[in-house]
This record gives sequence, structure tokens and C-alpha cells, in this order.
Amino acid sequence: MNETLIEIGQRAQTAADQVALLDTATKNRALGAMADALRTHQNEIITANQADLAQATDMPKKFTDRLMVNEQRVADMANGLRTVARLADPTARIDRGWINADGLQILQRWVPLGVIGIIFEARPNVTVDATGLTFKSGNAVILRGGKEAIRTNTALANILRAALEKQGLPADAVQLIEDTSHELAQEMMNLTDYIDVLIPRGGRGLIQRVVKTATVPVIETGAGNCHVYIDKDAALQMATDITVKAKVQRPSVCNAAEKLLIHRDVAAKFLPTIAQALLDHGVQLRGDDQARVIVPQMQAASNADWDTEYNDLVMAVKVVDSLDDAIQHINHHSTHHSEVIVTDSIERGRAFQQRINSACVYVNASTRFTDGGVFGFGAEIGISTQKLHARGPMGLDQLTTIKYEITGSGQVRH
Amino acid sequence: MNETLIEIGQRAQTAADQVALLDTATKNRALGAMADALRTHQNEIITANQADLAQATDMPKKFTDRLMVNEQRVADMANGLRTVARLADPTARIDRGWINADGLQILQRWVPLGVIGIIFEARPNVTVDATGLTFKSGNAVILRGGKEAIRTNTALANILRAALEKQGLPADAVQLIEDTSHELAQEMMNLTDYIDVLIPRGGRGLIQRVVKTATVPVIETGAGNCHVYIDKDAALQMATDITVKAKVQRPSVCNAAEKLLIHRDVAAKFLPTIAQALLDHGVQLRGDDQARVIVPQMQAASNADWDTEYNDLVMAVKVVDSLDDAIQHINHHSTHHSEVIVTDSIERGRAFQQRINSACVYVNASTRFTDGGVFGFGAEIGISTQKLHARGPMGLDQLTTIKYEITGSGQVRH
Repeated sequence: MNETLIEIGQRAQTAADQVALLDTATKNRALGAMADALRTHQNEIITANQADLAQATDMPKKFTDRLMVNEQRVADMANGLRTVARLADPTARIDRGWINADGLQILQRWVPLGVIGIIFEARPNVTVDATGLTFKSGNAVILRGGKEAIRTNTALANILRAALEKQGLPADAVQLIEDTSHELAQEMMNLTDYIDVLIPRGGRGLIQRVVKTATVPVIETGAGNCHVYIDKDAALQMATDITVKAKVQRPSVCNAAEKLLIHRDVAAKFLPTIAQALLDHGVQLRGDDQARVIVPQMQAASNADWDTEYNDLVMAVKVVDSLDDAIQHINHHSTHHSEVIVTDSIERGRAFQQRINSACVYVNASTRFTDGGVFGFGAEIGISTQKLHARGPMGLDQLTTIKYEITGSGQVRH
Repeated sequence: MNETLIEIGQRAQTAADQVALLDTATKNRALGAMADALRTHQNEIITANQADLAQATDMPKKFTDRLMVNEQRVADMANGLRTVARLADPTARIDRGWINADGLQILQRWVPLGVIGIIFEARPNVTVDATGLTFKSGNAVILRGGKEAIRTNTALANILRAALEKQGLPADAVQLIEDTSHELAQEMMNLTDYIDVLIPRGGRGLIQRVVKTATVPVIETGAGNCHVYIDKDAALQMATDITVKAKVQRPSVCNAAEKLLIHRDVAAKFLPTIAQALLDHGVQLRGDDQARVIVPQMQAASNADWDTEYNDLVMAVKVVDSLDDAIQHINHHSTHHSEVIVTDSIERGRAFQQRINSACVYVNASTRFTDGGVFGFGAEIGISTQKLHARGPMGLDQLTTIKYEITGSGQVRH
């Protein structure tokens, strides 16, 4: 095991033990100081970022858009930290407690997870966002970002660490791994003695690599292959609005709709209108045989289409025979993120919500609402598509675990 | 991948989808029918068990004690199912719901995990206990027990399955793997497409093997190296009672105390009395140098002692210089199960509860209270010593995950 990494792990654990004991006001003050420091040092950040961008000239525009940091983006990151400071501290809350039959007072406390590892790609804002959320919930964070953003990330981490130190708080609550090799990322995924949970942030390739190879527990986030199902009892206007907006409003994100299923009873009537609206927004359509009979402009969908997250202006369309068929298709092909039924039937809406095996199941609303901010969590570290520990948008609460604090007066078990 | 195992997994998933939709009354009726069936067929169970016992003549008595099933034990298993039938159904509860700013109704539902795998040793009662808890919480279970109990487990599983079938319910909600080879257990640990979570039940060797090699998410349970720390502000009588009872009342279980730490200010005064009480109960004591100066009858503790779960009438004793030393020692050596401080100081009790990194942290009460029944959960499937998903005693609630059911009236995101 890499010596540097073990030292990083040890320092993170020591810092985590200290941060876990800080009161809420101290943590909020530190978040404010980190936000101020980002603004004060914005030129350093932007200079470092320009050096990163200069190395990334042959990357696609989508990539450099995400990598780029300007004054506005520094302000956004700083504001993000201030937003987190205003959120309720889960570790300060006692939701559950009781006196058991033996007279023991049992309190269920929310406590920090400890050390959280974040593996991410070339999005420098993750350095700041992850720091804010992990710190507020009382954890230490170890960040390993993509090599294309290493100068920006290093500048950001150094500024955040210096701000903590200036407050008399442990800088090692935030550590960035400067070695961006694959080997080191691999070792980080196996650092079970020091990292309590790993959260990968990025594309499907990254997330699958972490899920498949990490021995540290992983929370899988952000893979979306979201479905809109238009039921036979749907109204055309609502069906069109939801489908089009869920597809085109921000096609690159994980809660965008990728697939349209439509009940055969309304396919001939609805599909031409809906398809035209999608085509008007520049969406490329790929249909199954039945859909293509109705809308001949569609290309033929391949089997692989049903499992593909496009993150782009592409949508595959399938005509289904029944609600049952829709549910089966979705449960088989989705990434269990967000799905919607458009229907005016209470019974059919309820059946869809009960039987679809996804984190967020909508009746008559866009999948695009799956978002920590929209849900009212204030901020999110990702959207979990797994069932254990956290599911759906993950806010501060999901970065904690529980501990039972039990107080007696000498009770023993006989 | 083993074909039989894949078929078992597919059948389990189909059954899980059906069981998830059953209402509480139907599940409770089925649990009652399973309990009745065990009583009706008790002779088959006992005959099968005698065949298992006949093969186990060269095993230690402790082993055959656990393997043995008689009329009383069949009655206990049946009563266990009836107890579970009386518990509240977590999937019928809606604890949280709200209307967000967009007017969406967001309900956080508790839903079954899906398919739960249980890998266990030669304790036939696990077949029934695990079935009761997983079924009541709406899951399907795949059981893989030790080869020494295969005839008993097969008899039990067949009776439970037949009882389900008779109620018109899917027998495949309960499946026992009849191939008890290590190879098959290994394949089960990698059956990620069909098993949502694995819960190993048994000794440390089994649990560590599952944790280290499974790719299916695991909940680690039941490893205990529990500490009693006697603070300088403790009363001798309470300190003695808690230490002795936590050690001797049932030394084979995971919540028994294995280590005694004592503050140096009270060691010379307290240790002779406490050690004598332990020796009177036949406890073998192993001390560090300072403890052995005070109680010369102690053997010398080795470094390995501090990390060992004896599950026997053995206790290691250490004199510590301070509360800080006690906390550091415990956080370093414990399995994060249950620890206790005996003290009359509010400040020191609180510091111990806040800084000890274990599932259950006691002030002035025995570690032996860490138990789903004692906590008021009605029953437990194990005691989680990990931080993710579940921590401490795991009842029905911990066999569920959440799902957000969101209902709108055509809302889209602009």
C-alpha cells in the first residue's frame, strides 16, 4: 500500500475525530470563512484554471465547459458553501429516543460517517461542494479529482485548508490527492482501514469502475436512464409537456428522460403530436417497429438503445401493450433512478408507483424534479441509485450514520 | 456462473416482486400458517435433525448444542414467527411526506430491499428466524446454511415453503441452497444481479470471509469485542456488578464484555474486589503489567489479547492513565459493537458517549442490553457493526430501503 496514501488516511481519521465534535456554530463559521477565502483568492484559482485549460485544448467543448472556472463560478462555489452553512446540522438533531422496559434511556443519534472519499472527474466545483457537505455533516473528506483539473483543484483545496487552519480547525478535514494516476485511485478504492465510504461523481464509466473494484463501501450515484410512460388514460397536452420538458430542458443530466413508452391504445393518436414537438426541439428519435409505423421519421432503435443513457438530444420510443408491459420493461432496463407515468387513473398511477423499482417514481410530473434542492434538502452530493444506506437525492442526512447512546443507573441483564 | 444458482436468483426476484405487494394481514396470516406447519410437522424436523446429529458425533458439545432441535426448540421457532407477525409492518408506515415548492406531493415510503441472502453456520433456527423477518418486511430470502445442518434446514425450508404455497403465496419467497460447498457459497457472494444484500450470521471467520470476498453488498454483523471502562468517578458496587454480569451472564454471545479497562486512580482499590468476583465465577483473567502488580493471579495479556473476542470465560484487564487513554484504546481495538463507561460524572459520561466510535455506547449499564428484543424492536436479524445502512440491532426496519413516491398535476421544470 502506498505510504503517502496511508498517511493521508491517518490524517483524515484524526481530523474526522476532531470535526465530529465541533458544534454547529463553529462549523458554520468555518464554512463562511472558506467562502470568503475563495472570493479573496479568486485570481489564484482562475490562474490555475487557465493553466489547466491550456493543457486541455484538444478536449471537446462540453469537457472544457465543465472544467472552466471564471469569477462567476467562484462566486457560485462560495455561495454554495454559504447555503450549506444555513442548512440544519443533522448531527445536532435527536429524532428518536425512548425508555426501554429496563429503564434505560436509549437515544438514537445521527453521527458523521467519518472519512468520505470522493473520486471525480474534471469538475473543479466538486472540490468545493463536497467539502461543504462533508464538513457540515462532521466528516473529513479525501478528494481525488481528474488529472485535467489538478491545478485548479489544488488551488481550491489549499485555499479551503488555509481557511480552516486560520479558524484553528484541522486543515486535514479536506485533503486532495495530488497523484492523479490510475494506480493511486485504485489503491484509494481499497483503503478500507481509513475510508468509511466512497462516493464516485462522474460518468457511468467512472462509477462502474469504482463499484466493481472498490473494497471500501461505495454509494453509487448519478446513472440515469429515466423513462416517461404515457398511459392510455393520459391527456395529450400533459403527456406532451412532460415528455418534451423532461427530454430537452437539460439533456446532459442524469434525471433527463431518455426513453418514451406509450400505451398502444393512444399511440396512433398521441405519437405524431409528441414526436413532432420533440423533433421541433432537435431531438433525434429512435423507435421500435410499432412506433415507426406511426412516425416514419424515427430511426430504428437497436436492443442496446433500451439500456443506454444518451445524455443528449436523443430519445428512444416504444409502444407497449399494457401497464404491465411498461412496468416490466422499465424494471428490466432502468438504472432505478426516476420514472414517470402520465395518467388520470388513480389505480394505474398507484400500481406504477408501487411496482416500479426506482428511487423516485412520479405520477404526472417530470423526472427532472429528482434533485436535492428541488426536494427541499438544500443541496445534494449526488443521487443514489442503490438501495443500501441512501436512495435518491443525498443531502447532509445521508452523510451520517446512527449511534445509540444509552444511559442507565447500573442496570445489568440477569 | 452456476446455472442452478442463477435460477434460484431469478425465482427469488419474481417472488420478491410478489411479496412486496402483499398487505400486512396477508403476510401475518402466512406467518401464522408457517408457525402452525412447524408444529404439525415437528417429527419430520426432529428426525432430520437426528440424522444431522448422527453425522456430527466428533464435533464439540457447544457445536452440537446449537445444532440440536427438539420439541421445545420447534415451539420456540414457531413462537418466533408469531412474534414477528405481531410486529408493525415497516412497509405500511409513511413517516415522512411533504409538498415541495412546486406543489409536488413527495412521500418517502419504506419498501423491501428485495432479495436478501443469508449465509450461516450450523444453527437451524436461523432458517426460520430469517424467513420470518425477511418475509414480514416484504422480501424474498435465499438461505445457505452449514453442511452439518443440511437435513434439518431442508426439512424446515420445505415445511415453510409448503405453508406459503397452501396460502396461495409464492413458495420461492423462501429458498434454501442445498449444495453446501464452499464454491457455491462463493458464487452466491457474487450474485449481484439477483441478491440485493448479504447478511452473514455466524463466527468471525465466516463473517470476515464474506466481507472480504463478496461483491454483493454485505451487512457485517455480530463481531463483538466489547469493553467495560471503569472511570475514576465510578462506584465500586456498580462497577463490579456491571463488569461481572456483562462477562459471565452469557459469555458466548457478541454483546458479552471481553475487556476491562480501569482508571489508575481507582485500580488499586477496585481491582482486587472485581477480580475476585470474576475469579469466583470461573473467569480466567489476563492482565497488563500494572493490573498484575495489583492482582498477581492474572496471567500476562499478550498484544493479541486486546483484539480477541474470546466468547468464553476469559477477560483481559488493563489499567489506563486517563479517560482519553481509555477512549483511544477502545476506538483502536474494539469491533465497534458495544462499550460501557461506569462513572458518576456527567461530563465524563458524555465525553465517552460522544467520542467512542461504536454502535451502542453505554453509561452505567451492561453491554448485554444490545439486543433487538431489549431495545424494543421485537426481534432482530443481527447486530450491525458497520456504519452504512444499518448500525446496532437490526429489526424489520433495517430490512427495508426507501422510495420516493411523487405525485403532481403535470408539473415540469422550466
